[in-house]
Amino acid sequence: MSVIPELLAANERYAASFTAGGLPPAPARRVAVLTCMDARMDPAKFLGLGDGDANVLRNAGGRVHPDVIRSLVVSYELLGTRELVVVHHTDCGMLGLSNAYMRGRLRARGVDAGRIDFLPFDDLDQSVRDDVDALRASPLIAGDTRIVGLVYDVHSGRLRQVV
Amino acid sequence: MSVIPELLAANERYAASFTAGGLPPAPARRVAVLTCMDARMDPAKFLGLGDGDANVLRNAGGRVHPDVIRSLVVSYELLGTRELVVVHHTDCGMLGLSNAYMRGRLRARGVDAGRIDFLPFDDLDQSVRDDVDALRASPLIAGDTRIVGLVYDVHSGRLRQVV
Repeated sequence: MSVIPELLAANERYAASFTAGGLPPAPARRVAVLTCMDARMDPAKFLGLGDGDANVLRNAGGRVHPDVIRSLVVSYELLGTRELVVVHHTDCGMLGLSNAYMRGRLRARGVDAGRIDFLPFDDLDQSVRDDVDALRASPLIAGDTRIVGLVYDVHSGRLRQVV
Repeated sequence: MSVIPELLAANERYAASFTAGGLPPAPARRVAVLTCMDARMDPAKFLGLGDGDANVLRNAGGRVHPDVIRSLVVSYELLGTRELVVVHHTDCGMLGLSNAYMRGRLRARGVDAGRIDFLPFDDLDQSVRDDVDALRASPLIAGDTRIVGLVYDVHSGRLRQVV
Protein backbone atom coordinates (compact mmCIF):
# COMPACT_ATOMS: atom_id res chain seq x y z
CA MET A 1 0.00 0.00 0.00
CA SER A 2 1.31 3.40 -1.03
CA VAL A 3 0.20 6.71 0.45
CA ILE A 4 1.38 8.59 -2.62
CA PRO A 5 -1.99 8.50 -4.44
CA GLU A 6 -3.57 9.97 -1.29
CA LEU A 7 -0.98 12.77 -1.20
CA LEU A 8 -1.60 13.58 -4.87
CA ALA A 9 -5.36 13.61 -4.28
CA ALA A 10 -4.88 15.95 -1.31
CA ASN A 11 -2.82 18.21 -3.55
CA GLU A 12 -5.66 18.37 -6.10
CA ARG A 13 -7.94 19.67 -3.36
CA TYR A 14 -5.27 22.12 -2.17
CA ALA A 15 -4.66 23.48 -5.68
CA ALA A 16 -8.39 23.87 -6.31
CA SER A 17 -8.62 26.54 -3.61
CA PHE A 18 -5.08 27.93 -3.90
CA THR A 19 -4.83 31.71 -3.49
CA ALA A 20 -1.13 32.31 -2.68
CA GLY A 21 0.12 32.32 -6.28
CA GLY A 22 1.41 35.87 -6.31
CA LEU A 23 3.97 35.71 -3.53
CA PRO A 24 7.61 36.70 -4.16
CA PRO A 25 10.43 34.23 -3.42
CA ALA A 26 12.06 36.40 -0.73
CA PRO A 27 10.66 35.58 2.72
CA ALA A 28 8.46 38.47 3.86
CA ARG A 29 9.61 38.21 7.48
CA ARG A 30 13.28 37.85 6.50
CA VAL A 31 13.78 34.85 8.74
CA ALA A 32 15.06 31.30 8.24
CA VAL A 33 14.19 28.40 10.52
CA LEU A 34 16.36 25.31 11.01
CA THR A 35 14.60 22.44 12.69
CA CYS A 36 14.18 18.68 12.80
CA MET A 37 12.39 16.53 10.20
CA ASP A 38 10.30 15.08 13.07
CA ALA A 39 6.75 14.24 11.98
CA ARG A 40 5.25 15.83 15.09
CA MET A 41 6.65 19.27 14.33
CA ASP A 42 5.05 21.77 11.99
CA PRO A 43 7.17 24.92 12.16
CA ALA A 44 4.62 26.98 10.22
CA LYS A 45 2.09 26.21 12.91
CA PHE A 46 4.24 26.37 16.04
CA LEU A 47 5.90 29.64 14.95
CA GLY A 48 2.83 31.22 13.37
CA LEU A 49 4.39 31.46 9.91
CA GLY A 50 2.21 32.18 6.91
CA ASP A 51 2.80 31.42 3.23
CA GLY A 52 5.79 33.43 2.05
CA ASP A 53 7.09 34.30 5.50
CA ALA A 54 10.22 32.21 6.08
CA ASN A 55 12.75 29.81 4.64
CA VAL A 56 12.40 26.50 6.44
CA LEU A 57 15.31 24.04 6.63
CA ARG A 58 14.81 20.61 8.12
CA ASN A 59 17.00 17.55 8.65
CA ALA A 60 17.50 14.83 11.26
CA GLY A 61 17.88 16.74 14.50
CA GLY A 62 17.85 20.24 13.05
CA ARG A 63 21.64 20.03 13.13
CA VAL A 64 24.16 22.29 11.43
CA HIS A 65 25.83 20.48 8.53
CA PRO A 66 27.58 21.76 5.39
CA ASP A 67 24.25 21.36 3.54
CA VAL A 68 22.62 23.73 6.02
CA ILE A 69 25.40 26.26 5.54
CA ARG A 70 24.95 25.96 1.76
CA SER A 71 21.23 26.63 2.11
CA LEU A 72 21.65 29.49 4.58
CA VAL A 73 24.12 31.24 2.28
CA VAL A 74 21.48 31.13 -0.47
CA SER A 75 18.82 32.31 2.00
CA TYR A 76 20.92 35.30 3.11
CA GLU A 77 22.52 36.27 -0.18
CA LEU A 78 19.68 35.72 -2.61
CA LEU A 79 16.57 35.84 -0.45
CA GLY A 80 17.48 38.49 2.10
CA THR A 81 16.96 36.66 5.40
CA ARG A 82 18.66 38.33 8.36
CA GLU A 83 17.41 36.26 11.31
CA LEU A 84 17.79 32.57 11.99
CA VAL A 85 15.91 30.40 14.44
CA VAL A 86 17.42 27.00 15.39
CA VAL A 87 14.91 24.60 16.97
CA HIS A 88 15.78 21.21 18.43
CA HIS A 89 13.16 19.22 20.32
CA THR A 90 12.39 16.87 23.18
CA ASP A 91 12.09 13.15 22.45
CA CYS A 92 14.32 13.56 19.37
CA GLY A 93 15.56 10.36 17.74
CA MET A 94 19.06 11.82 17.66
CA LEU A 95 19.10 12.23 21.45
CA GLY A 96 21.10 9.42 23.01
CA LEU A 97 21.80 7.81 19.66
CA SER A 98 25.36 6.83 18.70
CA ASN A 99 27.19 6.58 15.43
CA ALA A 100 28.29 3.05 16.37
CA TYR A 101 24.64 1.98 16.74
CA MET A 102 23.60 3.51 13.41
CA ARG A 103 26.59 2.01 11.60
CA GLY A 104 25.74 -1.37 13.12
CA ARG A 105 22.13 -1.09 11.94
CA LEU A 106 23.35 -0.51 8.41
CA ARG A 107 25.96 -3.25 8.63
CA ALA A 108 23.16 -5.65 9.60
CA ARG A 109 21.63 -5.12 6.17
CA GLY A 110 25.00 -5.34 4.45
CA VAL A 111 25.66 -1.63 4.06
CA ASP A 112 28.94 0.03 4.95
CA ALA A 113 28.13 3.45 6.46
CA GLY A 114 31.80 4.36 6.35
CA ARG A 115 32.58 7.37 8.47
CA ILE A 116 29.18 9.06 8.30
CA ASP A 117 28.53 11.19 11.35
CA PHE A 118 24.81 10.95 12.08
CA LEU A 119 25.14 13.99 14.36
CA PRO A 120 23.60 12.43 17.45
CA PHE A 121 23.72 14.25 20.78
CA ASP A 122 23.45 13.48 24.47
CA ASP A 123 22.35 16.83 25.87
CA LEU A 124 19.48 18.67 24.22
CA ASP A 125 20.23 22.20 25.38
CA GLN A 126 23.92 21.73 24.65
CA SER A 127 23.15 20.57 21.10
CA VAL A 128 21.29 23.84 20.53
CA ARG A 129 24.18 25.86 21.94
CA ASP A 130 26.67 23.86 19.85
CA ASP A 131 24.76 24.48 16.63
CA VAL A 132 24.24 28.19 17.30
CA ASP A 133 27.95 28.47 18.11
CA ALA A 134 28.84 26.62 14.90
CA LEU A 135 26.73 29.03 12.88
CA ARG A 136 28.19 32.09 14.59
CA ALA A 137 31.71 30.76 14.02
CA SER A 138 31.20 30.03 10.33
CA PRO A 139 32.72 32.64 8.01
CA LEU A 140 29.97 31.73 5.55
CA ILE A 141 27.23 32.97 7.88
CA ALA A 142 27.14 36.75 7.71
CA GLY A 143 27.97 38.51 10.94
CA ASP A 144 24.79 40.60 10.91
CA THR A 145 22.58 37.49 11.12
CA ARG A 146 20.67 37.42 14.39
CA ILE A 147 20.57 33.81 15.65
CA VAL A 148 18.49 32.32 18.45
CA GLY A 149 18.35 28.72 19.66
CA LEU A 150 15.17 27.14 21.03
CA VAL A 151 13.91 23.81 22.31
CA TYR A 152 10.44 22.64 21.24
CA ASP A 153 8.54 20.37 23.62
CA VAL A 154 6.65 17.82 21.51
CA HIS A 155 4.31 17.11 24.40
CA SER A 156 3.22 20.70 25.01
CA GLY A 157 3.90 22.45 21.69
CA ARG A 158 5.85 25.06 23.64
CA LEU A 159 9.18 26.66 22.74
CA ARG A 160 11.85 27.52 25.28
CA GLN A 161 14.75 29.80 24.43
CA VAL A 162 18.19 28.34 25.16
CA VAL A 163 20.41 30.92 23.49
CA MET B 1 13.52 45.14 14.21
CA SER B 2 13.40 41.44 15.03
CA VAL B 3 10.51 39.12 14.21
CA ILE B 4 11.60 36.67 16.91
CA PRO B 5 9.39 38.15 19.68
CA GLU B 6 6.43 37.79 17.30
CA LEU B 7 7.31 34.14 16.62
CA LEU B 8 7.56 33.42 20.34
CA ALA B 9 4.22 35.14 20.97
CA ALA B 10 2.65 33.06 18.18
CA ASN B 11 4.05 29.95 19.83
CA GLU B 12 2.39 30.91 23.13
CA ARG B 13 -0.96 30.98 21.35
CA TYR B 14 -0.19 27.68 19.59
CA ALA B 15 0.80 25.93 22.81
CA ALA B 16 -2.29 27.22 24.61
CA SER B 17 -4.54 25.16 22.33
CA PHE B 18 -2.10 22.30 21.61
CA THR B 19 -3.73 18.88 21.41
CA ALA B 20 -1.17 16.72 19.55
CA GLY B 21 0.97 15.85 22.57
CA GLY B 22 0.46 12.11 22.44
CA LEU B 23 1.82 11.33 19.00
CA PRO B 24 4.61 8.75 18.56
CA PRO B 25 7.86 9.73 16.78
CA ALA B 26 7.41 7.27 13.90
CA PRO B 27 5.52 8.90 11.01
CA ALA B 28 2.02 7.42 10.83
CA ARG B 29 1.97 7.40 7.04
CA ARG B 30 5.51 6.00 6.79
CA VAL B 31 6.57 8.62 4.28
CA ALA B 32 9.40 11.14 4.07
CA VAL B 33 9.27 14.29 1.96
CA LEU B 34 12.32 16.09 0.59
CA THR B 35 11.61 19.58 -0.67
CA CYS B 36 12.92 23.12 -0.93
CA MET B 37 13.20 25.64 1.92
CA ASP B 38 11.22 28.09 -0.26
CA ALA B 39 8.98 30.36 1.82
CA ARG B 40 6.02 29.87 -0.53
CA MET B 41 5.89 26.12 0.02
CA ASP B 42 4.15 24.43 2.92
CA PRO B 43 4.45 20.68 2.34
CA ALA B 44 2.00 19.85 5.13
CA LYS B 45 -0.62 21.89 3.31
CA PHE B 46 0.14 21.01 -0.30
CA LEU B 47 0.38 17.28 0.45
CA GLY B 48 -2.40 17.13 3.03
CA LEU B 49 -0.11 15.94 5.85
CA GLY B 50 -1.34 16.06 9.42
CA ASP B 51 0.65 16.18 12.65
CA GLY B 52 2.62 12.97 13.00
CA ASP B 53 2.24 11.87 9.38
CA ALA B 54 5.62 12.36 7.70
CA ASN B 55 9.27 13.24 8.10
CA VAL B 56 9.91 16.48 6.24
CA LEU B 57 13.39 17.37 4.96
CA ARG B 58 14.05 20.76 3.45
CA ASN B 59 17.10 22.54 2.03
CA ALA B 60 17.93 24.92 -0.81
CA GLY B 61 16.36 23.30 -3.86
CA GLY B 62 15.22 20.10 -2.20
CA ARG B 63 18.46 18.59 -3.47
CA VAL B 64 20.08 15.30 -2.49
CA HIS B 65 23.19 15.93 -0.41
CA PRO B 66 25.06 13.77 2.13
CA ASP B 67 23.03 15.49 4.88
CA VAL B 68 19.83 14.32 3.22
CA ILE B 69 21.16 10.77 3.01
CA ARG B 70 22.09 10.95 6.71
CA SER B 71 18.58 12.05 7.60
CA LEU B 72 16.88 9.52 5.34
CA VAL B 73 18.87 6.66 6.88
CA VAL B 74 17.56 7.75 10.29
CA SER B 75 14.04 8.08 8.88
CA TYR B 76 14.11 4.57 7.40
CA GLU B 77 16.04 2.73 10.10
CA LEU B 78 14.66 4.32 13.25
CA LEU B 79 11.32 5.77 12.19
CA GLY B 80 10.10 3.20 9.67
CA THR B 81 9.46 5.31 6.58
CA ARG B 82 9.20 3.30 3.38
CA GLU B 83 8.18 5.91 0.81
CA LEU B 84 9.95 9.07 -0.23
CA VAL B 85 8.57 12.04 -2.13
CA VAL B 86 11.06 14.45 -3.76
CA VAL B 87 9.55 17.83 -4.65
CA HIS B 88 11.36 20.58 -6.57
CA HIS B 89 9.46 23.67 -7.69
CA THR B 90 9.00 26.32 -10.35
CA ASP B 91 10.66 29.72 -9.85
CA CYS B 92 13.29 28.11 -7.60
CA GLY B 93 16.28 30.26 -6.70
CA MET B 94 18.57 27.38 -7.61
CA LEU B 95 17.25 27.29 -11.18
CA GLY B 96 19.68 29.00 -13.50
CA LEU B 97 22.06 29.86 -10.66
CA SER B 98 25.77 29.06 -10.95
CA ASN B 99 28.45 28.20 -8.44
CA ALA B 100 30.64 30.91 -9.95
CA TYR B 101 27.97 33.53 -9.24
CA MET B 102 27.47 32.39 -5.65
CA ARG B 103 31.20 32.25 -4.98
CA GLY B 104 31.51 35.75 -6.43
CA ARG B 105 28.75 37.04 -4.14
CA LEU B 106 30.61 35.69 -1.14
CA ARG B 107 33.98 36.97 -2.36
CA ALA B 108 32.41 40.44 -2.61
CA ARG B 109 31.96 40.40 1.15
CA GLY B 110 35.43 38.95 1.71
CA VAL B 111 34.41 35.31 2.18
CA ASP B 112 36.13 32.43 0.43
CA ALA B 113 33.44 29.89 -0.48
CA GLY B 114 36.13 27.41 -1.46
CA ARG B 115 34.76 24.51 -3.45
CA ILE B 116 31.21 24.55 -2.10
CA ASP B 117 28.75 23.19 -4.64
CA PHE B 118 25.53 25.14 -4.17
CA LEU B 119 23.71 22.45 -6.21
CA PRO B 120 22.16 24.79 -8.77
CA PHE B 121 20.40 23.36 -11.82
CA ASP B 122 19.37 24.46 -15.30
CA ASP B 123 16.50 22.06 -16.01
CA LEU B 124 13.80 21.61 -13.41
CA ASP B 125 12.46 18.22 -14.48
CA GLN B 126 16.00 16.91 -14.97
CA SER B 127 16.96 18.03 -11.45
CA VAL B 128 14.12 15.92 -10.09
CA ARG B 129 15.20 12.91 -12.16
CA ASP B 130 18.82 13.41 -11.12
CA ASP B 131 17.95 13.48 -7.43
CA VAL B 132 15.64 10.47 -7.61
CA ASP B 133 18.37 8.61 -9.52
CA ALA B 134 20.94 9.60 -6.90
CA LEU B 135 18.73 8.25 -4.13
CA ARG B 136 18.03 5.02 -5.99
CA ALA B 137 21.75 4.57 -6.65
CA SER B 138 22.81 5.16 -3.06
CA PRO B 139 23.64 1.99 -1.14
CA LEU B 140 22.50 3.84 1.99
CA ILE B 141 18.93 4.16 0.73
CA ALA B 142 17.20 0.82 1.22
CA GLY B 143 16.10 -0.87 -1.98
CA ASP B 144 12.51 -1.30 -0.78
CA THR B 145 12.00 2.47 -0.52
CA ARG B 146 9.40 3.65 -3.04
CA ILE B 147 10.56 7.00 -4.47
CA VAL B 148 8.61 9.46 -6.59
CA GLY B 149 9.74 12.82 -7.97
CA LEU B 150 7.37 15.77 -8.39
CA VAL B 151 7.40 19.39 -9.46
CA TYR B 152 5.37 21.93 -7.45
CA ASP B 153 4.07 24.99 -9.29
CA VAL B 154 4.31 27.95 -6.89
CA HIS B 155 1.75 29.86 -8.95
CA SER B 156 -0.98 27.20 -8.90
CA GLY B 157 -0.14 25.08 -5.84
CA ARG B 158 -0.31 22.02 -8.08
CA LEU B 159 2.05 19.03 -8.18
CA ARG B 160 3.09 17.26 -11.35
CA GLN B 161 4.75 13.86 -11.26
CA VAL B 162 8.06 13.65 -13.15
CA VAL B 163 9.27 10.24 -12.07
